[in-house]
Amino acid sequence: MVKHKTPPPGTAHGEPEFVEMLRKRAAIPRGSTVVLGIGDDCAIVRPRRSSDDLLYTTDMLIEGTHFLRDTHRPEDAGWKALARGLSDIAAMGGEPQFCLVSLALAGWTTGYWVERFYDGLLALAGQTGTALIGGDLAATDRLICDIVVGGTVPRGQALRREGSRAGDAIYVSGQLGGSARGLETRRGAAWQRHKRPEPRLALGRFLRERVGATAAMDLSDGLSLDLHRLCAASGLRAEIEAPPMFPAATLEQALHGGEDYELLFTAPPGVRVPRSFRGLPLTRIGVMRRGQPGRVDFDGEELPRGGWDHLSHR
Amino acid sequence: MVKHKTPPPGTAHGEPEFVEMLRKRAAIPRGSTVVLGIGDDCAIVRPRRSSDDLLYTTDMLIEGTHFLRDTHRPEDAGWKALARGLSDIAAMGGEPQFCLVSLALAGWTTGYWVERFYDGLLALAGQTGTALIGGDLAATDRLICDIVVGGTVPRGQALRREGSRAGDAIYVSGQLGGSARGLETRRGAAWQRHKRPEPRLALGRFLRERVGATAAMDLSDGLSLDLHRLCAASGLRAEIEAPPMFPAATLEQALHGGEDYELLFTAPPGVRVPRSFRGLPLTRIGVMRRGQPGRVDFDGEELPRGGWDHLSHR
Repeated sequence: MVKHKTPPPGTAHGEPEFVEMLRKRAAIPRGSTVVLGIGDDCAIVRPRRSSDDLLYTTDMLIEGTHFLRDTHRPEDAGWKALARGLSDIAAMGGEPQFCLVSLALAGWTTGYWVERFYDGLLALAGQTGTALIGGDLAATDRLICDIVVGGTVPRGQALRREGSRAGDAIYVSGQLGGSARGLETRRGAAWQRHKRPEPRLALGRFLRERVGATAAMDLSDGLSLDLHRLCAASGLRAEIEAPPMFPAATLEQALHGGEDYELLFTAPPGVRVPRSFRGLPLTRIGVMRRGQPGRVDFDGEELPRGGWDHLSHR
Repeated sequence: MVKHKTPPPGTAHGEPEFVEMLRKRAAIPRGSTVVLGIGDDCAIVRPRRSSDDLLYTTDMLIEGTHFLRDTHRPEDAGWKALARGLSDIAAMGGEPQFCLVSLALAGWTTGYWVERFYDGLLALAGQTGTALIGGDLAATDRLICDIVVGGTVPRGQALRREGSRAGDAIYVSGQLGGSARGLETRRGAAWQRHKRPEPRLALGRFLRERVGATAAMDLSDGLSLDLHRLCAASGLRAEIEAPPMFPAATLEQALHGGEDYELLFTAPPGVRVPRSFRGLPLTRIGVMRRGQPGRVDFDGEELPRGGWDHLSHR
C-alpha cells in the first residue's frame, strides 16, 4: 500500500497534496478502533482487548503498468500481485494472515491463464501462511488485480515511517536497482528479481524484535522517493551515500528504480545492526539529520526525487 | 462480496465451479484465525481472545458495468462503491468499521470528478461510522474502484447463508425490482434506488439480535439467483410466491433484477417477524423445504436463475 501515490490525471494537485486532502477528509470516527489511517505502508486497527494490532494494505496490479502480458507468465503476475502487499506487511514488522483478491479480467484472459495466475499467487500465499479468504471477479478491458492483505503485529509495536530520530543510521536490505535493470534487459537474475520480488517478512520481524528499528518502509517506488517519504513522515532530512547496487544495475537504477521491495529502515546510533540477516546484506547508507523535512542529500547535494512513476511504465 | 460470481471469459467452468475450484485450492493454514473463507457475503476472522469476529468483503465498481459516466454523478458512483460492501456487512448482521479504497482512474477522470466521487463515498462512510483508512491509486482505461470493508460482529453470531432449516419461512425486506426498473427508465424513485442503494445495516443487526434469523444474504444479483445460492448453501430448496414489487417494476424485474441491496433472510416457523422495521416492509415470500439443494420453485414451477449478470450490462 503506497497509499494514493499517483495524482489523479487532470488535477492540479500532486501526490502529497492528494494524500493530504484524503487524510484530512477521512476523519476517523470517535470511539473507532483505528490507530493509524492513510499514509503509511499499512493501516493499523486495534480491536478491543486484543493483544495484537491488525495491519491492512491494498495494492493494485495492472496489466501494462505492473506486468506485461507478453513477457510475464501468469504465475509471475499472481506472485507479484501478492508480493506487493506482503512487502507492506513486512515493512511494519508484521505477520501476514489472509488476503482478498479482486480480479477484473480482460477479454484476452482464458480460464487457463486465471488458474496459472492463482498457481503463482497461492504458491507465495502457502509459503507465507497467508489464507485466501475471499474476493470479487468482474470483466473489463485490461487485467487488474487488487489485493488486500491483512496481518498482525503485537499491540503498539508496528514499525512506522514516522519514528526516526536525528542521528539514527539509515540502512537498506539487499541490493538496489535490480528490478529496474531487469525491466531494461528482460533477462538474468535482474529480470527474475523484477518478476518475483521476495517480501522481506522474516527481516521485518527481526527489525522489530531484535534490532529495535525506529522506522521502516518497503522500497516500492525507488530509494530517492521512498526515503523522502520516510524523512517527511519523521520531520527530518537524510544524508546518504551510494546504496549497494544489484549486479549490472546503474547508480541511477539503484537510486531511483522502483519495485525492489527491499526494506529501508533506521536504527539508533548505538545499535549494532548485523552486516547480514540470513544471507541478505544489511548496509548502512547514511544518517538522519535535523533540517528541511523530506530533503535527501546524496554525496553532499540534494537528490532529486526521480522515483518510479508506475503511470509512465505502461 | 458476491464472491467470484462471474466465470472467467473463455473458461469452461461457470461461476459455481470457479468458486469451488478456488475454495478447494485456498486451503486455510493450520492454526489460522480464519473461521469462514470464500463463499458467503463476507469472510470471518476470529482474532485470539477477541469477543468480536471480524468481517471482510471486497467489491469492484466498474465504469460501464456498475455505473455509467454519462448518467451517474461522481457522488453517486462513490456512494454506490461503498454501499455494495456495506450491504454485505449488513447481510451478516455486522457493524462496519473501516474501508480501503483502490481507485484505477481512466484518462477522462479529472481531479474534480475524483473529489466529488469521495464526496459521495465519505457521506455514506460518515453516516455509517466507516473510517476510510487506506487505499491505492493508479491509472488505466476505464474507471475501476475496488473497496474492502471491514466490520465486526459478536463472536460466533454472524448471519450466514448456510444456517437455514427445512420449514423456515423466507422473507425479503423492502420492494424488489426498483434498481432494474430505474436502469430501464433512468428516472424517478426507481432511478434513485439504482444510483443510491441503502445498505440495510440496522435491519441486519435487528435480524441477528431480535429475530434470530437462521440465514441471511443481500440481494445484489437478483432474487432468483441469490435465493438459489442461499438454498444451495443450506442444502435445501425453496418455494416462493411473488415478492413485493417496487412501484412500476415488473414481476420479471422483481424476480431477476439485480442491485436492490435488500436483505433476504429465513426465520424459524415459530418466530413472529414484524411486518416492518423502521418503516421498511418485511414480507414473507415462502418456505424452505427438503429437496434438491438450490432449487427454487415459484408458484409451483421451477424458477430459472435469470439473475443479474453484471457483465452483460455495460
